[in-house]
Amino acid sequence: MSSSDSPCPFCAIAEAYPATNPTSAGSPSADDEAHERTSPSAFVVLSTPLCMAFLDIMPLSPGHILVTTRRHHEKISDVSEEESRELGLWLPRLSRVLANVTGVWDWNIVQNNGAAAAQVVPHVHFHIIPRPALTPELRNRSFTMFGRGQRSELDDDEAAVLTKDLRKELARELERLQNKEKL
Amino acid sequence: MSSSDSPCPFCAIAEAYPATNPTSAGSPSADDEAHERTSPSAFVVLSTPLCMAFLDIMPLSPGHILVTTRRHHEKISDVSEEESRELGLWLPRLSRVLANVTGVWDWNIVQNNGAAAAQVVPHVHFHIIPRPALTPELRNRSFTMFGRGQRSELDDDEAAVLTKDLRKELARELERLQNKEKL
Repeated sequence: MSSSDSPCPFCAIAEAYPATNPTSAGSPSADDEAHERTSPSAFVVLSTPLCMAFLDIMPLSPGHILVTTRRHHEKISDVSEEESRELGLWLPRLSRVLANVTGVWDWNIVQNNGAAAAQVVPHVHFHIIPRPALTPELRNRSFTMFGRGQRSELDDDEAAVLTKDLRKELARELERLQNKEKL
Repeated sequence: MSSSDSPCPFCAIAEAYPATNPTSAGSPSADDEAHERTSPSAFVVLSTPLCMAFLDIMPLSPGHILVTTRRHHEKISDVSEEESRELGLWLPRLSRVLANVTGVWDWNIVQNNGAAAAQVVPHVHFHIIPRPALTPELRNRSFTMFGRGQRSELDDDEAAVLTKDLRKELARELERLQNKEKL
């Protein structure tokens, strides 16, 4: 846990959003104002006992999400074996969910450890970043993922809609996986 | 599996390096010429029934390794639940191994899906890239991870020594994990 004089923003999200069943996350009963539980707003796609996923508040592209452990760890080298397995499990699942919702089937997964590797928030997290097809203008600054990347602030209304869509698709994704297991 | 007219280089490595017990990978009996089983040479750090790790032949920094599934899948969205869990498990373990061997505790994990995301080899893989502290000169081109990054060809003799060190450290890492479980 972070100390109270320099609160960790991801720990604040973890505290405000207890674990919920992701298979029912897309239900109409989902709270519309749920993102206002923290400041800045959080747009939570997934909240399990071990892992969380939410929108990046300075996205490099629409749909840019972060996947983290609920517990505070600084680097990927600090997570437990159990957390590692679950992070590994959510990356492909959330990749499919994002691609299905955004329609963009090219994406980067990036996880930065330490200042020299461009880590900003010292709570371990993976970025999943959709990469829409490059226009000539975009191509000139392609793959400059951090530091020089074009980041814009998240619009709360758009983010709320996107989050709802992602949670609905995640519920469908988990249903598909369950049906696969039954085969 | 890839077709024979456009062979997948990672499938070639998977075929040439059957699964071996990683806890004994650092033993003195390890074959010195083992990297010559494929062309170009492969420097294999880990080979399990589901996952493999080997040095990138065009490293962005010393110790740049790739972590893949043994089976051919194009993107992270294509891997099985079992493979996902195991990939997740090896990322922190191999991160610790790399940091201990290189002495560099800042690193990026990057996984590219599709051409617009800079994927080159169409067999799913994670990069683990040590990031030594930045000199002023390096800082100017920092975090341009692909396309413009400075990549140099791997030196076979240096790579063989590094691989041996990584396998020894991996065996120690697994021993530490086993001892932890026994506590």
